[in-house]
Order: sequence, then C-alpha cells, then structure tokens
Amino acid sequence: MRTVWLNGEFLPETEARVPIFDRGLLFAQGVYEVTPVIDGRFCNWAHHAARLARSMALARIADDTDWPVVLNGLIERNQLTEGRIYMQVTGGAPADRDFLSPLDPVAPTRFAFTQAAPVVDQPKAREGLRVTLHPEGRWALRQAKTTQLLYAVLAKEAAREAGVDDAWLVDDGFITEATSANAHIIDARGVLVSHPVDHGVLPGVTRLSVLPIAREMGLIVEERAFSVEELFAAREAFVSSASALVLPVVEVDGKPIGNGGPGTLTSELRRRYVERLRTA
Amino acid sequence: MRTVWLNGEFLPETEARVPIFDRGLLFAQGVYEVTPVIDGRFCNWAHHAARLARSMALARIADDTDWPVVLNGLIERNQLTEGRIYMQVTGGAPADRDFLSPLDPVAPTRFAFTQAAPVVDQPKAREGLRVTLHPEGRWALRQAKTTQLLYAVLAKEAAREAGVDDAWLVDDGFITEATSANAHIIDARGVLVSHPVDHGVLPGVTRLSVLPIAREMGLIVEERAFSVEELFAAREAFVSSASALVLPVVEVDGKPIGNGGPGTLTSELRRRYVERLRTA
Repeated sequence: MRTVWLNGEFLPETEARVPIFDRGLLFAQGVYEVTPVIDGRFCNWAHHAARLARSMALARIADDTDWPVVLNGLIERNQLTEGRIYMQVTGGAPADRDFLSPLDPVAPTRFAFTQAAPVVDQPKAREGLRVTLHPEGRWALRQAKTTQLLYAVLAKEAAREAGVDDAWLVDDGFITEATSANAHIIDARGVLVSHPVDHGVLPGVTRLSVLPIAREMGLIVEERAFSVEELFAAREAFVSSASALVLPVVEVDGKPIGNGGPGTLTSELRRRYVERLRTA
Repeated sequence: MRTVWLNGEFLPETEARVPIFDRGLLFAQGVYEVTPVIDGRFCNWAHHAARLARSMALARIADDTDWPVVLNGLIERNQLTEGRIYMQVTGGAPADRDFLSPLDPVAPTRFAFTQAAPVVDQPKAREGLRVTLHPEGRWALRQAKTTQLLYAVLAKEAAREAGVDDAWLVDDGFITEATSANAHIIDARGVLVSHPVDHGVLPGVTRLSVLPIAREMGLIVEERAFSVEELFAAREAFVSSASALVLPVVEVDGKPIGNGGPGTLTSELRRRYVERLRTA
C-alpha cells in the first residue's frame, strides 16, 4: 500500500480524506503539479515550483509547503525509482459553502502521492501516439494548472472510444494543446512550431527544456499557433509533458503524419531530454 | 452541528470526508444542484432532477440516488424551515489518478447538506444588487451544472473587491449570465429579454418558472442574448436563481439601471414566484 501525504502527515493511501466542504471539491479551486521521478529523484523542481506559485496566485490560494521535503519523503517511503509525483493545493475547507473565500482565511488543503510507472522506457516512444482532433472548449485561464479538468477528461474518453490515444484541441482552425500535454510540429519546412505559452495553453515544464534542446540540434523554433492544415502537412508531430516526456504523434484523425512512424528529430529530442534528466 | 449525508449515511458535518483520489477533487468531475427550502419543503424537484440527470450524462456519471428521501431526511434531522440544500455527485474515487475513468466503473460519490438562510425575506430584494461587468471566460459546456466553478469564484471575489454584490459576464459585447444566476432585463421597450438556454448558460430552474409568470403578467418575453448597450438602456434588470429566487439589479458598473431602484415588474415577478413556491 502506498504512503501518501496530506496536510503535513504521511498516511496510508486509503486513509487520506478531505472534508466535503473543501473548496477543491465544491469549486475546483485547486492547483496541481506533476513531476517525473527518474532514478529515484524528482526532476525540474525549480520550474514546477515557479509554476505552482503562479497557479496559486491566479487561483487565490496561499501556501508555503516545503515540497522538496515532502517529495523526498514520499520517494523514500514508497521506494520509488521511476514514475511521478502528483501534488495539489486547494482553497481549503471552510465550515460552509460560499463562492466567496472566507475573509478570515482557512488553511489550504495540500496533498501528494506517488505513481510508479515507466517513464524512460515507454512503448509509445517506439510506436507513436494516434490522436483525434476535438473542439477546444476549456476555460480561458489555461496558463494556470488548475483542476478545471472535466473537459480534458471528456476529450480523452472520446478519444478512447474512437480507438486512439488522445485528442488535440482545435480553436478556430488552430491547435492549442493536447488534453494534458503541449503539442508541437516539425513543419513542412523543417521548422519546429509550438504554440506560445503567454496565453491559451499551459507553460509546460518539459517544453521549457525541449525547445532549447531543439535549438541546440540546429532547428529553427517558431513560437506561434499552427493550423490544422500545417499539422497535416508536417514532417513530424509530438507532445511534451511530465508523464510523456517527449512522445511522437504518428497519426491524426486516421491520417499519417510524415511517413507514419515516429519522427527522427522527435526521437532525438526525446533521447537528449532523457539524458538531461538523468544527468541534471 | 449539522447532519449531512454522504454515500447513504447521515453523518455529523465534521465527519463527512472523501478520498483524495475522488475524481471530483482531481478532475472536477462533479455535478450539483441547489434546491431552495421554504416552509420546511424543498422546491421544484422535478426540474432539479431532470437537470441533474442531464448534467450527469454530460459529465459521464451514473447514479440512481433516491434524492427526495435524502432531502427529507436532511430537512427533518436539521429542522430546516428555510434555506437550501446542496447536493453533489462525482465520478467517484478509483484507487489511483487517471484522466480516463476506470473501465470497471467505481461507485459515484454522493453528498448533500443543508444551509439555513432567509430565502423569502432577503434585504437585497428591497435594496437591489449592484454588479460589475466581467469578461466571460468559463468553459464551453455551461449548460451542465458542474463544479468547473473557479472562474465564477474569481469573478465574485473581484466584485467583492470592487465593493459590489456580483459580476455579470460579457462575451463579445453580450451578457451571458451572472456568476451563479441567470441574468435578465426589461428593455427600453418594456420587453423581458433573457439569454436562451440552449447553449452558453445554465438552464435555470427558477428561470423556468419566472418566464411563464412574466407572460401571465402580460409581458412579452424574448429569449435572445442582450448587449451591454441594451442593459444600460433597460428599464429594469434582475437575476434568477435557487438562492436569489428573483432579485433586482439596480446598478451596473456604477451606473443606475432605470430609476436606480428595484424595478416594479421585477418586484411583482418575485412576489408571484414566492407565492407559487409557497402554494406548490
């Protein structure tokens, strides 16, 4: 049985519970992070911490948890060598429900848990992902990593029913994101095109490392939205996220991207990023 | 101490807790209803039940709770004569986090609690509400009553900081809704204009009763979006919801609506609706 962490305590996973009045549950006033764990170490903490702070500010949540201590405690107690750690902070649990936060603040609710999973050696890195296009319908404040996630859940379940791996979201003819990953192409000219992260998409921590790696490889990187037409004409397509790291997309709505197999540049990006995580 | 209800049990309010793995908490896969309670009876149940079923279908949640038994049990145990009852159903708590619902379904999480509050005799019915305009930024599936509510929380908190009661949301120059109520005007011609509920706004249960009452009063009712300009030129403005019933809006962004006091027609709509609830 896993040991999880809740509001300062390490607990068996079946004993970690929050009040029904928690603002995370009633209003989705919750923000989260997921950090990969490789070789028993969590990765990219400075970037996750910075984004968590920005998400909390947007969601009007104040908290000063010393997360590295929590993450190390979870890794040790669960003997985790590879996988990820999920952590969430909510607006806390006042005594009653009110859209307005109490003027006399309540303590935030904070919890975290590990998930053991292969991160480096994922079959999809060799096979590639097959995705469908799905209309964008999420809320406006997508630069924050909040628990407003039902739209992503529904899009992923629609993709599962269509027999594919995931959905890419389309807003007015342009790709915003995958349901839980940043979306990128190597376009017909060989240029890496990636949606800018100043609005409309999550500023991915993995993306922060992958774009500089691409530049080191000699690629030109354009941070702008790309259209559905550009996607279908692209040489390669891929996603980046804490869980996927970098994974190739080989098919969109039943049509092959490039030669229909994982792209050469995508595979090299993944290889270099894994190496960087291992040696960081 | 209140008695609340959770998954089949009546419990002290401080003992009702859900696992941190609940999909309501991790993905905001939760839907809810709020029914007013007047004279110790809950109201409009058929409409709330129908909407809850539609919300659950959209959110992919299956449940067959016999809610009237729960609501009556809560009213009796808490000796509630006036206020409201909140009930929520989530996607349940699988053993681990995954955007995809488990193929072997888990039981939904269901809970409900009472809130004692004046419903009929509200000071704001005499004073009227003062509101600000705020950009619409909620997700696309607003016809369902889900816990994707952080945007509404943030808009309400911005309104509080501006020293007013609530915010009305503006999408491309047109009003969609208040943060947690339907928005209506009696326009410069004396016509009641109300956003249609086929998309973009919640199909309000109170609205379902109020529009026919308006027609009985001889008003013409147009179900279409109204613009910010129409709002400022309106004779009256008001909101409808389970908590507000019908409440006048007397000021928007510091400018008076009509003569700056609660509208005559709005007050009559409220009076007739309260009478209907009492005699239903």
